[in-house]
Amino acid sequence: MKTIYTDNNATTMVAPEVLEEMLPYFSELYGNPSSMHSFGGNVGLKLKEARQKVADLIHADPGEIVFTSCGSESDNAAILSALAANPDKKHIITSVVEHPAVKNLCQSLEKEGYRITFVPVDNMGRLDTDILYAAMDNDTALVTLMWANNETGVIFPVEEIAEKAAEKGILFHTDAVQAAGKIPIDVSQAPIDMLSLSGHKIHAPKGMGVLYVKKGVKFHPFLKGGHQEGGRRAGTENTASIIGMGKACELAGSHLKEMDTRVRAMRDHLEAGLLENIPAATVNGEKDNRLPNTLSIGFDAVEGESILLLMDQTGICASSGSACTSGSLDPSHVLMAMKVPFESAHGTIRFSLSTYNTMEEMDHIIEVMPGIIQRLRDMSPFWKKH
Amino acid sequence: MKTIYTDNNATTMVAPEVLEEMLPYFSELYGNPSSMHSFGGNVGLKLKEARQKVADLIHADPGEIVFTSCGSESDNAAILSALAANPDKKHIITSVVEHPAVKNLCQSLEKEGYRITFVPVDNMGRLDTDILYAAMDNDTALVTLMWANNETGVIFPVEEIAEKAAEKGILFHTDAVQAAGKIPIDVSQAPIDMLSLSGHKIHAPKGMGVLYVKKGVKFHPFLKGGHQEGGRRAGTENTASIIGMGKACELAGSHLKEMDTRVRAMRDHLEAGLLENIPAATVNGEKDNRLPNTLSIGFDAVEGESILLLMDQTGICASSGSACTSGSLDPSHVLMAMKVPFESAHGTIRFSLSTYNTMEEMDHIIEVMPGIIQRLRDMSPFWKKH
Repeated sequence: MKTIYTDNNATTMVAPEVLEEMLPYFSELYGNPSSMHSFGGNVGLKLKEARQKVADLIHADPGEIVFTSCGSESDNAAILSALAANPDKKHIITSVVEHPAVKNLCQSLEKEGYRITFVPVDNMGRLDTDILYAAMDNDTALVTLMWANNETGVIFPVEEIAEKAAEKGILFHTDAVQAAGKIPIDVSQAPIDMLSLSGHKIHAPKGMGVLYVKKGVKFHPFLKGGHQEGGRRAGTENTASIIGMGKACELAGSHLKEMDTRVRAMRDHLEAGLLENIPAATVNGEKDNRLPNTLSIGFDAVEGESILLLMDQTGICASSGSACTSGSLDPSHVLMAMKVPFESAHGTIRFSLSTYNTMEEMDHIIEVMPGIIQRLRDMSPFWKKH
Repeated sequence: MKTIYTDNNATTMVAPEVLEEMLPYFSELYGNPSSMHSFGGNVGLKLKEARQKVADLIHADPGEIVFTSCGSESDNAAILSALAANPDKKHIITSVVEHPAVKNLCQSLEKEGYRITFVPVDNMGRLDTDILYAAMDNDTALVTLMWANNETGVIFPVEEIAEKAAEKGILFHTDAVQAAGKIPIDVSQAPIDMLSLSGHKIHAPKGMGVLYVKKGVKFHPFLKGGHQEGGRRAGTENTASIIGMGKACELAGSHLKEMDTRVRAMRDHLEAGLLENIPAATVNGEKDNRLPNTLSIGFDAVEGESILLLMDQTGICASSGSACTSGSLDPSHVLMAMKVPFESAHGTIRFSLSTYNTMEEMDHIIEVMPGIIQRLRDMSPFWKKH
């Protein structure tokens, strides 16, 4: 059975070109770039190239790129650095739909005495910027908002918000883990102080993240120890993965147009096909302002986990909520924050595509899904009322 | 020119068997183990196997293994967790010769108001346990000591110290990054609460660490976010590297005997050969109580960096201090703490072997080194006095 993988917001395949670049750095050119011999030093030169490629994807300077171990580490590092840089400020502004790496850390900080404003979203997933702007005050150390949502794909107006934060002298961080490689990101166009990326969402390996730290922004290291990454992140450089990340960013940049055209067309085709062939189905999130690869769609009166199970039997991979939170049967915090009706939230499936998907795969999903939903509805006590 | 790699305490080659195990998990079986589809779930089963193999190397239970991104992260996580678990205690005991991941974090905590006892060592690198035991008091949250030193290979009596800490109700953490795979480690034989490992020191890839957390020890996550690693470390699992770490630990366990015999014999042969053929050379550290793979040797009146440069021209890789601190010309903090005479500390070279080295390589080093040292001494104003 062929696997149809439409779970790219959870993780992606390492691109063959990326793996090819990485391979020599495991068992051949395995030197430590901090070493005094050329065997290690040569690896350092290759890391420099990779840093440039990552910087290029977001229009940054290579000196502004800090390699970390994952998007979650980048988020943790950005938030804690902002607090350390502003020891007198005790307020953070974020949203109700952030990734757990931001949400859970903020909740933990709240218990330590920090004041957190969790800005709400409307039923389309749009941020309430009135509440956001009204919350900014002299005590605010940081505004941290995702660029695009992992579940719905809804894009936040981070550039506009960054401007407002800068006007008030407040640091601005964005978790761009889901936006990167799907829509253009240009840190030179807005006063973004820090920005998180994750390798495994853009066809680089897992265990690789990036934190962009704008030149001049005071940074306090999260991980303390050796002087790697210009003293901003201790630990021997993850050389193979950094080199892979460079290649992945180069590829991501060159695929942005394809994301906006071919991938968007596949997503739209899938969305239209499912809505046409399955009754009582609803798309979650603002349709016109979404990542081109993401479709969050709720099917009334069925359980997301059961849908995934039957999809899995036909080789189709997708998510019900965020993979990070699976294991729980509650609807995701994102759908709850959007006040998606319970019945539809519970039966929500997220399809997230990549450039490796094909239109034939979309047609296959459209063919298979109506039967799966019908079969489950036939067994559902909640469906009878329809 | 063939490379002779004797810098294994800095980093190691990924073992071919390790890379082979990892390879399918980049571009074929790339699912997220937290996903609800079998494509991701199957990866989870493989991670379970890897966790067991890591546990086996140190005689732990798989549930006590937390995968991190590096040894430095494990050290940071252990120390900060101990403080979070004991909010009323403000004292840490460590040594003057720790890795920067412990030393620099402790120095940073000192600035925040914690009291740190940096226990001294003698000129053989042996810990002053009288001072250590006298420092333990009701305010002590943690004793954190390396199992073996990265520069000299000197082994600390961590099991005995762990017993004393346990008697006083003090948490005990050991950075076993350099000890693992070189000498037997058995956490069931002593009340060790936390223990750090690093992948890239034992032929697993860079960017992979482990923190052992003894069952029943309260743990506060360093990296907050998703519920991976039993809620103890957020971030999508670094699947390929975790799988590689499992294999590397299996190999390390099976190579312990070879470390103690063949590798030790190579190190001893190298040491004897250098001492015999180069005047004014001194071995640093307690000779009878060292890792079997490590030789730290000082050559009077020459600069370590210059020696490395000439060695590099003949394809021999080694270190002058710890790779983490290279870039600075000061003698390493370890040699300074041991009060190694300035003249000898500056000319110190660390050779660190692995099972991939051969006796022929040792003979080649013994052949080449006297000429290198002589050439530099001929140019040295400090040598004339001899």
